[in-house]
Amino acid sequence: MMKKRIGLTVAYDGTHYCGWQVQDNGTTIQGELNRCLEELLGQPIETMGASRTDAGVHALGNVAVFDTDSRIPPEKFSYALNQRLPEDIRIQSSQEVTPDFHPRYCESEKTYEYRILNRRFSLPTERLYSYFYHYPLDVEKMREAASYVIGRHDFASFCGAGAQVKSTVRLVTGFSVEREGEMIYLRVSGRGFLYHMVRIFAGTLIEVGNGIYPPEHMQEILDAKERGAAGPTAPACGLTLLGIEFLES
Amino acid sequence: MMKKRIGLTVAYDGTHYCGWQVQDNGTTIQGELNRCLEELLGQPIETMGASRTDAGVHALGNVAVFDTDSRIPPEKFSYALNQRLPEDIRIQSSQEVTPDFHPRYCESEKTYEYRILNRRFSLPTERLYSYFYHYPLDVEKMREAASYVIGRHDFASFCGAGAQVKSTVRLVTGFSVEREGEMIYLRVSGRGFLYHMVRIFAGTLIEVGNGIYPPEHMQEILDAKERGAAGPTAPACGLTLLGIEFLES
Repeated sequence: MMKKRIGLTVAYDGTHYCGWQVQDNGTTIQGELNRCLEELLGQPIETMGASRTDAGVHALGNVAVFDTDSRIPPEKFSYALNQRLPEDIRIQSSQEVTPDFHPRYCESEKTYEYRILNRRFSLPTERLYSYFYHYPLDVEKMREAASYVIGRHDFASFCGAGAQVKSTVRLVTGFSVEREGEMIYLRVSGRGFLYHMVRIFAGTLIEVGNGIYPPEHMQEILDAKERGAAGPTAPACGLTLLGIEFLES
Repeated sequence: MMKKRIGLTVAYDGTHYCGWQVQDNGTTIQGELNRCLEELLGQPIETMGASRTDAGVHALGNVAVFDTDSRIPPEKFSYALNQRLPEDIRIQSSQEVTPDFHPRYCESEKTYEYRILNRRFSLPTERLYSYFYHYPLDVEKMREAASYVIGRHDFASFCGAGAQVKSTVRLVTGFSVEREGEMIYLRVSGRGFLYHMVRIFAGTLIEVGNGIYPPEHMQEILDAKERGAAGPTAPACGLTLLGIEFLES
């Protein structure tokens, strides 16, 4: 029987997971998906994900695919999986995709949001999905700083240690900084991201917003091409993968 | 030494608590507050709260008071307590109040928000602070239904079983129903609420929004003066006590 490739849009609360990718010690999103698919289909299934988000990072729209010869209609997998998945993972849609579609190797644009709760005291009901930062932040300066990284640049300074990549050149297509009340939203879109890149953007913009260095210093950080030049890696809980747009498939 | 009365504004994520009020079996917000105050002051302290929220209900601004002869400046208690409290409880402010101020017996207006996530599939990152409801809801009808309970009424139909009150007459001063994207926000203000009253409002408005009965049926529910006439009690996770305004103190 012909195998079909099924694509899933996956939302999750990353708080209690060791990230996306299956690993030996610890529960992962991919591991839970594989487990529920095996339960449903009666055979081992290995999903392939678009973004291997880190421990504690959330998603509204990560994408995964798997192959099956099951007769379950493609759009029904969302319902069948949601009945089996833990409540902090929910499939948002399922559909058949072309057999050669691989969400990691297809050209795509990802959009991430980093949320900073900027007020005097932490708010318990926001703590899991934002990073609490006490000192007042200047959003205008952060916005100006963000403008320096838009475009095609060598982002070596914004690449976490331990990454194994051929090139650290990436294209950032958009970066907005907005404040709504006490929450600051950083939204970054780009064609692929380096390890920890958005969290280092966030940690660096916080230093700009706090006046540690001026927005123009972003250019020097880019030019330095070494991790030590940028700010710290902001905590995982503030980061959410909003969605992925595939440019060819 | 003269005792001072200190007022605290308390925010919490109620997910992991058996509600506000101290009880023998289970961790409560008041219990954690009392424990941290005892740790800080070296003597047993009993706080008095404005609203004894149920298990699973959240708050941005519940209010509690306690008496102490400590020399800690009143406004410093927020910092000192936040260092000791678990991360799902945070004092938002502390200040001296008059010795006869009792947050439960002072005339006050409380504002609650009930959040309903109305979309096809649940969203993991919203699940702890909203009630997920799959079927499309008609917000216009819900708003019309809400208008029936504004004012001074006998709310016996909206009073949970097991409540011990002399009168079930209460004054609802405002009730708004707004949709922002996939989230519906019910905001209710009033001078005191009966047991489960806001959650029964929410459960009933959901039935109106779903077309089970028309908005005008709210009048019959009020007139019936019995719990069975109204809709179900909506789940605790959707409810947040936003704040309390004291009208005399």
